[in-house]
Amino acid sequence: MQNKPPVPEMKVLMIGDVVGRPGRRAVKEFLPALREARQIDLVIANAENLAGGNGITRETADEIFSYGVDFLTGGNHIWDKKESYSYIDEETRLVRPANYPPGAPGAGYRVFTVGNHKVGLVNLCGRAFMPDLDCPFRKAEEITAALAAATPIIIVDFHAEATSEKIALGWFLDGRVTALFGTHTHVQTADERILPGGTAYITDVGMTGPRDGVIGVRKEAIISKYLTQLPKRFEVASGPYQFNACLVTLDPATGKALSIERVQEFER
Amino acid sequence: MQNKPPVPEMKVLMIGDVVGRPGRRAVKEFLPALREARQIDLVIANAENLAGGNGITRETADEIFSYGVDFLTGGNHIWDKKESYSYIDEETRLVRPANYPPGAPGAGYRVFTVGNHKVGLVNLCGRAFMPDLDCPFRKAEEITAALAAATPIIIVDFHAEATSEKIALGWFLDGRVTALFGTHTHVQTADERILPGGTAYITDVGMTGPRDGVIGVRKEAIISKYLTQLPKRFEVASGPYQFNACLVTLDPATGKALSIERVQEFER
Amino acid sequence: MQNKPPVPEMKVLMIGDVVGRPGRRAVKEFLPALREARQIDLVIANAENLAGGNGITRETADEIFSYGVDFLTGGNHIWDKKESYSYIDEETRLVRPANYPPGAPGAGYRVFTVGNHKVGLVNLCGRAFMPDLDCPFRKAEEITAALAAATPIIIVDFHAEATSEKIALGWFLDGRVTALFGTHTHVQTADERILPGGTAYITDVGMTGPRDGVIGVRKEAIISKYLTQLPKRFEVASGPYQFNACLVTLDPATGKALSIERVQEFER
Amino acid sequence: MQNKPPVPEMKVLMIGDVVGRPGRRAVKEFLPALREARQIDLVIANAENLAGGNGITRETADEIFSYGVDFLTGGNHIWDKKESYSYIDEETRLVRPANYPPGAPGAGYRVFTVGNHKVGLVNLCGRAFMPDLDCPFRKAEEITAALAAATPIIIVDFHAEATSEKIALGWFLDGRVTALFGTHTHVQTADERILPGGTAYITDVGMTGPRDGVIGVRKEAIISKYLTQLPKRFEVASGPYQFNACLVTLDPATGKALSIERVQEFER
Ligand SMILES: [Fe+2]
Ligand SMILES: [Fe+2]
Ligand SMILES: [Fe+2]
Ligand SMILES: [Fe+2]
Ligand SMILES: [Fe+2]
Ligand SMILES: [Fe+2]
Ligand SMILES: [Fe+2]
Ligand SMILES: [Fe+2]
Repeated sequence: MQNKPPVPEMKVLMIGDVVGRPGRRAVKEFLPALREARQIDLVIANAENLAGGNGITRETADEIFSYGVDFLTGGNHIWDKKESYSYIDEETRLVRPANYPPGAPGAGYRVFTVGNHKVGLVNLCGRAFMPDLDCPFRKAEEITAALAAATPIIIVDFHAEATSEKIALGWFLDGRVTALFGTHTHVQTADERILPGGTAYITDVGMTGPRDGVIGVRKEAIISKYLTQLPKRFEVASGPYQFNACLVTLDPATGKALSIERVQEFER
Repeated sequence: MQNKPPVPEMKVLMIGDVVGRPGRRAVKEFLPALREARQIDLVIANAENLAGGNGITRETADEIFSYGVDFLTGGNHIWDKKESYSYIDEETRLVRPANYPPGAPGAGYRVFTVGNHKVGLVNLCGRAFMPDLDCPFRKAEEITAALAAATPIIIVDFHAEATSEKIALGWFLDGRVTALFGTHTHVQTADERILPGGTAYITDVGMTGPRDGVIGVRKEAIISKYLTQLPKRFEVASGPYQFNACLVTLDPATGKALSIERVQEFER
Repeated sequence: MQNKPPVPEMKVLMIGDVVGRPGRRAVKEFLPALREARQIDLVIANAENLAGGNGITRETADEIFSYGVDFLTGGNHIWDKKESYSYIDEETRLVRPANYPPGAPGAGYRVFTVGNHKVGLVNLCGRAFMPDLDCPFRKAEEITAALAAATPIIIVDFHAEATSEKIALGWFLDGRVTALFGTHTHVQTADERILPGGTAYITDVGMTGPRDGVIGVRKEAIISKYLTQLPKRFEVASGPYQFNACLVTLDPATGKALSIERVQEFER
Repeated sequence: MQNKPPVPEMKVLMIGDVVGRPGRRAVKEFLPALREARQIDLVIANAENLAGGNGITRETADEIFSYGVDFLTGGNHIWDKKESYSYIDEETRLVRPANYPPGAPGAGYRVFTVGNHKVGLVNLCGRAFMPDLDCPFRKAEEITAALAAATPIIIVDFHAEATSEKIALGWFLDGRVTALFGTHTHVQTADERILPGGTAYITDVGMTGPRDGVIGVRKEAIISKYLTQLPKRFEVASGPYQFNACLVTLDPATGKALSIERVQEFER
């Protein structure tokens, strides 16, 4: 009797919103070892808060590419630095939410090659308690149908606030995408699972950045904002950082997810 | 040399929003064994979705009291059944959000006795993406100051949507309360920790109810609502249930939290 | 020397949200005389609150057709009665907001004949503080381009909350439509004007219904809602009614507006 | 037979949100002549957009005081210039929304003397689609009760978005205040009336500023914001200005309103 050769798996790591310098430092400290130890094939990071907590720059993107990040996703804050629109437009390793109106800089989804496999990466933004964008459900349907012709491996970063919108899109795409990673709330959720159709799902991957602020921001300013309702200046918090991510193993032949696992690391 | 006698600890379990019949069944299946196995002293459950997903009734409350729940908290949906306002007003084992305007039925905080110790229980509701209530920060300050005269053991259920509001209140109350348990989003978060001042904190305890809906509701209706933007009738989902809770150990002499642990059980 | 023959003008009356029975009575009392006195060619009424304040029925629509209304428009509340979806789908004298997702019952714009002229009627709904619909600006552009091939006379009912969204769409469509009538707030505004490109504009036509409620609803319930933040049952207010409308005169050859005038009548 | 001497009336003019330099110019052009022609006793202006469209400064306030404005009110934008908080705190001719949390700079209501009469001036901000403030209804009740001991003449500027909240507060205060002037939407409404209890009411006084923008802002930026959902820089519009105000006549002995009249002037 013959042993079956081991199924070749692909491992994808999604890193939650990387916030400013503390977030980039956390990527630097934790990603290389993790990539090596877990034999990760593809690393994606949400980069909407990469530069000073608001938006992205070529320099900060290059910095985390150098630590082992392969691709970047965006969110509602990706547009915060107007001077980086041309970078967003040119960078082929970046997707920004696909359901912004036509004409927005950059691309909402892309196909790239990982080893011998093509991977589709999609970024979408929610609408509940968020900007007035095009319907993420219909846009997801349109894009996944287009990508299905190219590859069964489709990764979605759904950047949204309301748990109901995220879970609903997870069910809507179950069996049509490999993984739906939620981002935006900056708090990792503990509901990771493989849905019945083979889609890996988590409501939020969390945040990679300063641990002792409020979703990455100096806590004194946020508390004061809630107490006074007056305008406040928000700055990236200092102090120890954390690394939040989610690791999905998939079968590249079918695009189905095989496992999903939350990852958390803390500065010592 | 003499051994110190073991420090007497108190164990508190907070159960996340119990949704309808599937949620009550989950409490029946999992709570008694958990209470026994972990020697839990006090069990609190968020009951805003207890009766058919919307509000509370005396009968559904009595049902989960019979399974070992000691006290109930509320939220924005606690008011959904007008016929239960007199029950909310009379039930001494229930607190509803303290920052509803004066005159609302029931009480926003209560002190009760667990073994030899007095425990203060507080319910507050957030305002970000929520109803226009009184300030939860100022109300928390007022209530915790009043309770501090009675006991160092203060448990807060902060029922809110936005992660920033919940984390901010956690920092605001750090050192002043034993635990701040977030509720309302129906998704358990993985950010449980003991803050530097000794307050146990979690952004959301999660949901006890049907696992394969959207935050407890039949997924078809929610997906259709997002796709069509037309009014839909929401019903509690069927299928297997889950049990989400959070266990905190505390020192009754100081009211400081000693440990915090997430709990998840799934119907087999 | 010869006198030029008088330019043949067309007169269009837009009636603001007709609320329940008091609103229908106001139409009955004031419309026939007004239509006669002012020689009005076309009467349109917003009908989202026609039946008991929520939605529309065939019976209530037929009632106001019998008083001299020619066409109906909708809004976010047009969907409140599920049993009337087939009516909305069949009624050729009705448009509902065109920027609801594809598949919604009914049509978002229609062309019909008034005398010797074709008229395009469009209904759009805003998104600021409103449901998450498709972009009203892009939808307006698409529809007006399509209609321009059929007729220069285009009437838009823009059903929206925020003054900025309404005024912005007015400027966006200036010169491309005959009139943009705002609806939804139930309060008539005093900013009627002809924009430089020839588009008649008013932020809100107002409400035709009970005068002494709060936007048509019994005031006690609304005040209590604001004071208590508890759920309340809303009913159409009783008492004297008002009639709110806006009259536009246009040149049918060019579709340009010639005059705009607010109309208010009160029950004696 | 003897003639009764003429009842001594008091005339109050409320000027709608004065926006930037065009707004101040409109005050300069129209107020002095209007004040003289109509024998106005008291002029109040909403000043939340006085300085460059965002907030207030001592210089811009002094400028419109010099044109005949007596008192200023605020709104959600009164806080936009942090460097003016000390001015807001010191200026006795200014009220800012009373329902900001305790500790906000300045005063939410004041009593001052007009001729032989004391007048109470109150500023409140709504909560529907607005910041999370204290309840304007309860705050209004508290303040009007306090003021009633000093004078029957009470003027309220209710700075709010939703028509329902404004009308509800009008009914709530009817008979307890002389006038409730709505502000904030920057569009004058045509629903001015004397409520049965003697309170003059208008949902919105409108805007004093550039006529051809979108609520005072350059229209290109606002339209682009709606179309792209990307961040935009807003600037005060240029072009001709308008003056929006509302004139109330009252009986100083009773504080009851006798008449209410809308005022609109346009740059020639
Ligand atoms: Fe983020
Ligand atoms: Fe975000
Ligand atoms: Fe709940
Ligand atoms: Fe809730
Ligand atoms: Fe309406
Ligand atoms: Fe409406
Ligand atoms: Fe303003
Ligand atoms: Fe404002």
